[in-house]
Amino acid sequence: MTIYKAPLDDQRFALFDVLGAESILTKLEGGEGHTRDLLDAVIEEAGRLSEALLAPFNASGDAEGCVYDKVAQTVTTPKGFKEAFKAFAEGGWTGLTQAEHFGGQGLPNTVGTATTEIFQSGNLSWSLYPLLSEGACHAMELHGTQEQQDTYLKPIVEGRWTGTMCLTEPQAGSDLGLLKTRADAGENGSWKITGTKIFISAGEHDLAENIIHLVLARLPDAPAGSRGISMFIVPKFKVNADGSLGARNAVAAGAIEHKMGLKGSATCVMNFDAAEGYLIGQPHKGLAAMFTMMNAARLGVGVQGLALSERALQNSLNYARERLQGRSLSGVKFPEKPADNLLVQPDVRRMLLTQRAIVEGCRTLLLYTSLQTDVEARGADEATRKTASDLVAFLIPIAKGVVTELAQESTKEALQVYGGHGYIGENGVEQFVRDARIITLYEGTTGIQAADLLGRKILQLQGAGFKVFAKEIQAFCQQHAQDPAMAGLIGPLASYTKEWADLTLSLAQRVMASPEELGAAANDYLYYSGYITLAYMWARSVAALANSSQQEAFKQAKRDTAKFYFARILPRCLLHKAAIDAGVETLPAIG
Amino acid sequence: MTIYKAPLDDQRFALFDVLGAESILTKLEGGEGHTRDLLDAVIEEAGRLSEALLAPFNASGDAEGCVYDKVAQTVTTPKGFKEAFKAFAEGGWTGLTQAEHFGGQGLPNTVGTATTEIFQSGNLSWSLYPLLSEGACHAMELHGTQEQQDTYLKPIVEGRWTGTMCLTEPQAGSDLGLLKTRADAGENGSWKITGTKIFISAGEHDLAENIIHLVLARLPDAPAGSRGISMFIVPKFKVNADGSLGARNAVAAGAIEHKMGLKGSATCVMNFDAAEGYLIGQPHKGLAAMFTMMNAARLGVGVQGLALSERALQNSLNYARERLQGRSLSGVKFPEKPADNLLVQPDVRRMLLTQRAIVEGCRTLLLYTSLQTDVEARGADEATRKTASDLVAFLIPIAKGVVTELAQESTKEALQVYGGHGYIGENGVEQFVRDARIITLYEGTTGIQAADLLGRKILQLQGAGFKVFAKEIQAFCQQHAQDPAMAGLIGPLASYTKEWADLTLSLAQRVMASPEELGAAANDYLYYSGYITLAYMWARSVAALANSSQQEAFKQAKRDTAKFYFARILPRCLLHKAAIDAGVETLPAIG
Repeated sequence: MTIYKAPLDDQRFALFDVLGAESILTKLEGGEGHTRDLLDAVIEEAGRLSEALLAPFNASGDAEGCVYDKVAQTVTTPKGFKEAFKAFAEGGWTGLTQAEHFGGQGLPNTVGTATTEIFQSGNLSWSLYPLLSEGACHAMELHGTQEQQDTYLKPIVEGRWTGTMCLTEPQAGSDLGLLKTRADAGENGSWKITGTKIFISAGEHDLAENIIHLVLARLPDAPAGSRGISMFIVPKFKVNADGSLGARNAVAAGAIEHKMGLKGSATCVMNFDAAEGYLIGQPHKGLAAMFTMMNAARLGVGVQGLALSERALQNSLNYARERLQGRSLSGVKFPEKPADNLLVQPDVRRMLLTQRAIVEGCRTLLLYTSLQTDVEARGADEATRKTASDLVAFLIPIAKGVVTELAQESTKEALQVYGGHGYIGENGVEQFVRDARIITLYEGTTGIQAADLLGRKILQLQGAGFKVFAKEIQAFCQQHAQDPAMAGLIGPLASYTKEWADLTLSLAQRVMASPEELGAAANDYLYYSGYITLAYMWARSVAALANSSQQEAFKQAKRDTAKFYFARILPRCLLHKAAIDAGVETLPAIG
Repeated sequence: MTIYKAPLDDQRFALFDVLGAESILTKLEGGEGHTRDLLDAVIEEAGRLSEALLAPFNASGDAEGCVYDKVAQTVTTPKGFKEAFKAFAEGGWTGLTQAEHFGGQGLPNTVGTATTEIFQSGNLSWSLYPLLSEGACHAMELHGTQEQQDTYLKPIVEGRWTGTMCLTEPQAGSDLGLLKTRADAGENGSWKITGTKIFISAGEHDLAENIIHLVLARLPDAPAGSRGISMFIVPKFKVNADGSLGARNAVAAGAIEHKMGLKGSATCVMNFDAAEGYLIGQPHKGLAAMFTMMNAARLGVGVQGLALSERALQNSLNYARERLQGRSLSGVKFPEKPADNLLVQPDVRRMLLTQRAIVEGCRTLLLYTSLQTDVEARGADEATRKTASDLVAFLIPIAKGVVTELAQESTKEALQVYGGHGYIGENGVEQFVRDARIITLYEGTTGIQAADLLGRKILQLQGAGFKVFAKEIQAFCQQHAQDPAMAGLIGPLASYTKEWADLTLSLAQRVMASPEELGAAANDYLYYSGYITLAYMWARSVAALANSSQQEAFKQAKRDTAKFYFARILPRCLLHKAAIDAGVETLPAIG
């Protein structure tokens, strides 16, 4: 079956050597204790847990799937899931990045991203259960009353309960303004929630005692469209004043979806039948409240792309090393064996280097972005926090949109390395491809990310984050302009960054004159931006080698992969620029 | 569930308006009767059969899969498969392109490609059964004795039996020189075949009375490696002198594979336990004999890519038309409805036009290549046949390698149009993605196609086919240089073709100096060649509009899609050229 070993060395390199996470995090408010030693211990422990309790149940969880009982309306998760969740909760992982006054560990998002990668690599389906809880906690932390937090948030942080986010309805997906679920006045200021939600991850399961749904619905006096949506807390079991579980609420899973992959994750149709709910946050401001969770959720899905790509890479590299087939074009390399291994083939190395360039570049980007979310939350002063916030806003659609799309390519190449054997279930790699296919769809499709980047982050916010980021890259290029170790990297990076700035400006003007140009350019602008962003991450990685204590083989692999990235991936910008320049006139009406 | 309607209009346009199939085919030896009317009637009838008997059982076949009985060592195919095969055989489709003296219809490969597309769109898993038979027939036609042809070929042509090709072994996939299955002397000049073959499509099933395996194995005196392989006929049931079925032979399915997709196609592990077999062709020349089937088999897999892409496009276009979500950026388009449909989004049109550009471009390419195989077989004179043969040799790796890779993209974009709904099994589009994933792997991976194109077709054969093809494109460009309808197409096509020729020459020199450069450039050279080849097909399509009797809406869609292709797909050549130029130094050893 498949192997998995947590990539601790590369995480450490990215965190400490490339990004200087220790010096940044320890200077944040309340971050004194967040030293390299502590973070190191956390990721090591995450690695042990994932390797022992999650990774072994990934393939079996795919084969078993979740089982829905139509009569009882219950969901049974696959073998191993319950035990892993128990160990996870007992280890304090459910509250890793939650505030200490809610019972959490108060650790930075940055280390949360690193450990989330490890857990998701181990078992993506399983990891959806804690991930959704995290989003629900975040919403209650920001918008809940003290009482709501005490009642609903703390048990989730403790890992006794889990949470969901109930947005989508059959007729309302990307366009939440169309949603119909309604809230009618109930007793004691509560609301009666009625409607059907679909695609609800972790909507029903057997891992925890209670499930707290955060539900978008319309109050009786709600205006039409997206400005008439409010958020409600709807618990599966009502909660007594002493915190114990009360009566079953009128919310239940009506079915689970049969999906292409992610089969261990219960994707539920949730029926609300005048279920008792409690308004959280302001009336009609539910969408805005939901959006405050969006950055974390989207970053988390980006991490899923990294996690699947990492595990697929480990396996395909292993396969290429062990599979004996054919001979090297430049002469036999394993004369004592019936054939050479696949690594002697340059085209197989191309597939592996493509994966490695994606995996390690995306890891650096996701950790970089996570660091900025920590600075945004706990930076020393308002200006620092504002700058970080601008950067985060700008980078999220790239970290979600581009990383998840590249994960499609990366897992595809991993499967391709196996030849026909990749298509067979028992070799395990095809599951990574099936599991990966969801991530460009949920938490906003790639098209939504692209529109967010160009429409909101560049145009509406006047490119605030882009300006900060481009300036940072330019400063980096100046700093390393004469560094011989950076030859071949700084030149292209600097000129692409210049072109990016020019293109962004001219595109913004074009879109303001003709709004359809936004949709015509957004996808290619997303990719274009992503490839330059990853080029910067690769250049940073090479620059960091000088003062890194990693082994020489590790360093050589970094240099090789960076060179590969600049020579064979970064030129994709040529294509995307051509497509951007082509404009909306090349996308005429379709009958 | 999913829809399917045979794309007869576009097939007719490609066949008759673009490629002039009627005037070419009727001039071939024995082709007097192959008129437009006849071919038209054939594809119409194929459409009826596929829509009625194949398409409705595609999703259910995926859900049911093939069922293997361990005790009886039998395979039961999904519901509907047997009935469809019976109707197919009765309709004479099993012998459509087989010679009349074997009981076939003697129709051209070109119409076989068109009908195969239609059947594969209907149900790819099902279509594997007749496809494998076709390959076996072809081998027996070329290499079998009169007696072997009478005994084994005719019943397959009649659709009473089916055939297989047994090549792969666990340790021998792309490198057949490693295979171990052996032939020991048996009675009356027969051989006893012993060994295990894997990935044998249609190796066991319930559609026909007998299965004729063509098996690669080593004679006792065989030299090592690929020069010691012979081909044998091994029937499931031995055949009596009168043609009736005799005793069961010692060959049986030991298992079937559980695959990512193509679940209705039985992929068998075949155990040969001193099974009685008969040498076909010359001793030790089995690999060469197998390769004579390769062009047809690879073209057939290219057609699979087209077939899946076509059906995925039909469904995603239909979904985009019906799904109401969001509003147009340039103002409401459906004021009477709660939202506009997805077609108002330029980015959705980009996904649909990408698919259409791939589908229609690839269809033209596959029919063009098929026409050349007909000319190769039955052209008026030796020189004509030689030119066609060179063209076929050159185009096959493109028609297989590029079309199957583009089918990955095309089916992926189709799923993406559905958003999260695309990930749900019951919407059907995810099956196309899973089914498509095999086609870049079997009949030679994309890496094998790339090496074949650059190593064999360009270097070993000194670019014979390339020269013919490039000259044809240049002549076409000259002919249409002043045609206003071709503005924006001829310029880029001519200059890319020039660059292609220069690049091919310089690359050939580079590879001769350093053989590793072959593997370093082959994949990108394959794509680069493919995109220019498709540009030529699109330019031909636009040129053909002037004298076409198709409706104006059809013509406008062609012009729009060609423009899209040249503006947004063809520039991918920029990237692939950069990667080719980067050379093997960017693909260093991996530890």
